[in-house]
Amino acid sequence: MEPGIVIIGCGAAGGTAAQFARKTDRKIPVVILEKGKYSQYSKCGLPYVISNGIPSFDDLVEFSEEWFKKARIDLYLETIVETIDVENKQVIARKNNEEIVFPYTSLIIATGAEARIPPIKNLEKSLPKNVFLLRTIEDGKGIVSILDEIDKPVIVGAGFIGLELAESFHKRIKDVTIVEALPSILPNTLDKDMSISIQKELSKYLTILVNHLVEEVHINNGYVDSITLRNTETKEQMKMDVDLLVIATGTKPEVTLAQQIGCRIGETGGVIVNNRCMTSIPNIYAIGDCTEYHDFITGNSMLVGLGSIAVRQGIVAGVNAAGGNRFLPRGFLQTCTSRFFNIEVASVGVPSHRISNDIISARYTGSSLPEYYPGGNPVTVKILVDREKGVVIGGQVFGENAAQRINTIACAVRNQMHIDDFRDLETAYAPPIAPTFDPITITGEVASMKWRRK
Amino acid sequence: MEPGIVIIGCGAAGGTAAQFARKTDRKIPVVILEKGKYSQYSKCGLPYVISNGIPSFDDLVEFSEEWFKKARIDLYLETIVETIDVENKQVIARKNNEEIVFPYTSLIIATGAEARIPPIKNLEKSLPKNVFLLRTIEDGKGIVSILDEIDKPVIVGAGFIGLELAESFHKRIKDVTIVEALPSILPNTLDKDMSISIQKELSKYLTILVNHLVEEVHINNGYVDSITLRNTETKEQMKMDVDLLVIATGTKPEVTLAQQIGCRIGETGGVIVNNRCMTSIPNIYAIGDCTEYHDFITGNSMLVGLGSIAVRQGIVAGVNAAGGNRFLPRGFLQTCTSRFFNIEVASVGVPSHRISNDIISARYTGSSLPEYYPGGNPVTVKILVDREKGVVIGGQVFGENAAQRINTIACAVRNQMHIDDFRDLETAYAPPIAPTFDPITITGEVASMKWRRK
Repeated sequence: MEPGIVIIGCGAAGGTAAQFARKTDRKIPVVILEKGKYSQYSKCGLPYVISNGIPSFDDLVEFSEEWFKKARIDLYLETIVETIDVENKQVIARKNNEEIVFPYTSLIIATGAEARIPPIKNLEKSLPKNVFLLRTIEDGKGIVSILDEIDKPVIVGAGFIGLELAESFHKRIKDVTIVEALPSILPNTLDKDMSISIQKELSKYLTILVNHLVEEVHINNGYVDSITLRNTETKEQMKMDVDLLVIATGTKPEVTLAQQIGCRIGETGGVIVNNRCMTSIPNIYAIGDCTEYHDFITGNSMLVGLGSIAVRQGIVAGVNAAGGNRFLPRGFLQTCTSRFFNIEVASVGVPSHRISNDIISARYTGSSLPEYYPGGNPVTVKILVDREKGVVIGGQVFGENAAQRINTIACAVRNQMHIDDFRDLETAYAPPIAPTFDPITITGEVASMKWRRK
Repeated sequence: MEPGIVIIGCGAAGGTAAQFARKTDRKIPVVILEKGKYSQYSKCGLPYVISNGIPSFDDLVEFSEEWFKKARIDLYLETIVETIDVENKQVIARKNNEEIVFPYTSLIIATGAEARIPPIKNLEKSLPKNVFLLRTIEDGKGIVSILDEIDKPVIVGAGFIGLELAESFHKRIKDVTIVEALPSILPNTLDKDMSISIQKELSKYLTILVNHLVEEVHINNGYVDSITLRNTETKEQMKMDVDLLVIATGTKPEVTLAQQIGCRIGETGGVIVNNRCMTSIPNIYAIGDCTEYHDFITGNSMLVGLGSIAVRQGIVAGVNAAGGNRFLPRGFLQTCTSRFFNIEVASVGVPSHRISNDIISARYTGSSLPEYYPGGNPVTVKILVDREKGVVIGGQVFGENAAQRINTIACAVRNQMHIDDFRDLETAYAPPIAPTFDPITITGEVASMKWRRK
């Protein structure tokens, strides 16, 4: 086999890297080794198949085996990498009990992440039949297979995936509970005041228990039939009947192979990469959920947990591995969005409680349309400003077109735009589309006033 | 009467200036003199009352007489300013045949603009009964009063207002014609290739005649019953039956008073102001459609013709007139948007044919959603890049959320963002909301590739 670019993992990061390696060098062999049986598919789409927003799990496949074939990318599915032989620059993998050796010029590690299961009594070893994660199509199919018989589902973790899943359950089931150990929903994404506003709305549809830990699951005949919760504030215990438990408490990077060959691993547990996505070992790149990088604002290490970042890393690694030259920005903005129960939420940067800079923030609720035009919807915006420099360092929005509005704030953050300039940004105005001052700029006006009074 | 801030004109600019003058100094007298009978209303909303998107013309009033009263702003309606006495710092006005003298500490001229009527034979003196402009509520009411009997309306001018009006007519009338003298619709807003794509779609609903001048109207009993058009390319003449003619060919600044007192007037015909909205005469400001300012990119003088700019000038003049300190940016981006026949269009900066810089541009059509999520709509984006510097200098979008997408590009333009940084912008991604790369960033990728190959 001719040496070429070998990519371990065909998720969003690995698939994108293959695509851009091929674009950069039309001749070099490009190989992807994927342990699962699906080619590149959208993990983020899983809750929407469960909700029937997407018709079937097969629809989640973004690039099919045929697509990779046409692009002359050799995709090996159900292929487990056993060893990376750095000295001889080759990967030893196994498919159908057959060992195959893949020599590489460049290697890209895109092994992703695994669900992180919190310490819960009786969940230490294996998962009971009605306890699920939601990381793979298999997980999704497992949930769907029993969903018709469920009427007391509990979701652990009130992040985006937990809330998206809660909505999909709510479409079929009256009594859906979501349990969060921290004091507010979306604790990694929003400031508490923003979370509380959303939580209030969601409480119309869901039972939300914040400040609650699942301490124990009670198993009967291989199924969990109840759980014990503890209120982290009052320390009170509570028992609750459950017929489906989904753990959505985040992920941990899958770095076994990277660790074996001695790639530097960061404090967060992810592989450390530079701005070309190179690991500490020559010719070996790492991308996606198995890596860590810098947060744009704080400069702190952060785990890459977003598909949008994974694909951007995929481009950089793919281009560089194929002899091109492309760089990551100095840090990631972590722009993200989700929608549940008709509330669109979006954020850029990290929430206030994760930033050590001295911050000024402003929050404002306006309308998506001028007052005189019927049909406007509320838009709530929060903007974070560095007190010393006066620059925009983050934003959070919920309501109409939250995602698009956060993109504009993301552009401001990326440009380290001063709040006075952001306040003055000429946003597009037309009666049926947007008011003369978009709610984001009015929030900027309030933030600027607060900053000047500092 | 105690001297205070006197504002001539209660449009978006004047009304906003009053509001911010009051916010800046809670005690100083603030007076608005408005020749019309309505307090601050939205001119941009006029087409939507005609289309019934807004129930009545009265709904267009954004700030009522009561509102101004509560804000302790003295609003004089139907009050004509006769003279500005600069030496004695007073304005002499007439209301109900009574002369009133308003002494001022600061004067703000916000006299707006008037419709510009192109040279058309038989329209030189007065308008026949079925020929209308669309600048005022009176104009709108005039059109509505005869619309039920109309079946051959012609609109002259294919700018935003012309097209919005065409859509409102189309809701009631099968045969709507729009005539544009220049080679494409929206010639001040879009590059020709973008216009042509939209024109193709609009031609399903409208007869659109570009490269056509109205040379003559034929009057019968005080009504226009036909017009003569000339094709500017073939020079052929054509006669057309008409029962309603609306002239929407732009505006000219109303600067009579400013001129009388010797304010410097620019080449565009607007009052020249500095970045505090001051005219060439001490203590006299000018804002809104009667002024000119600099285009952000080209630095050229441009007429202020957008409500969104008028209100931003209003803030600056209001604050400064009341003793505060606020500045315009070095130029305006001219971000704008409109929607007709379900096509949302938006733009920032000036189109390529108005820029002398050497430009690289990229155009791309993507989807508002990831491919695997049902219901995505096309989004077409064009980005203009300065060839020498590599910075984003303009953008045009049509399709889903064009306005919000253009706001992000506007933020990039304002920050003189390099196309490589724009390309890498982390846009928000979630299956039901947006793809991993928003169409604006994919367009950035294409533009960046073209720029590197330059």
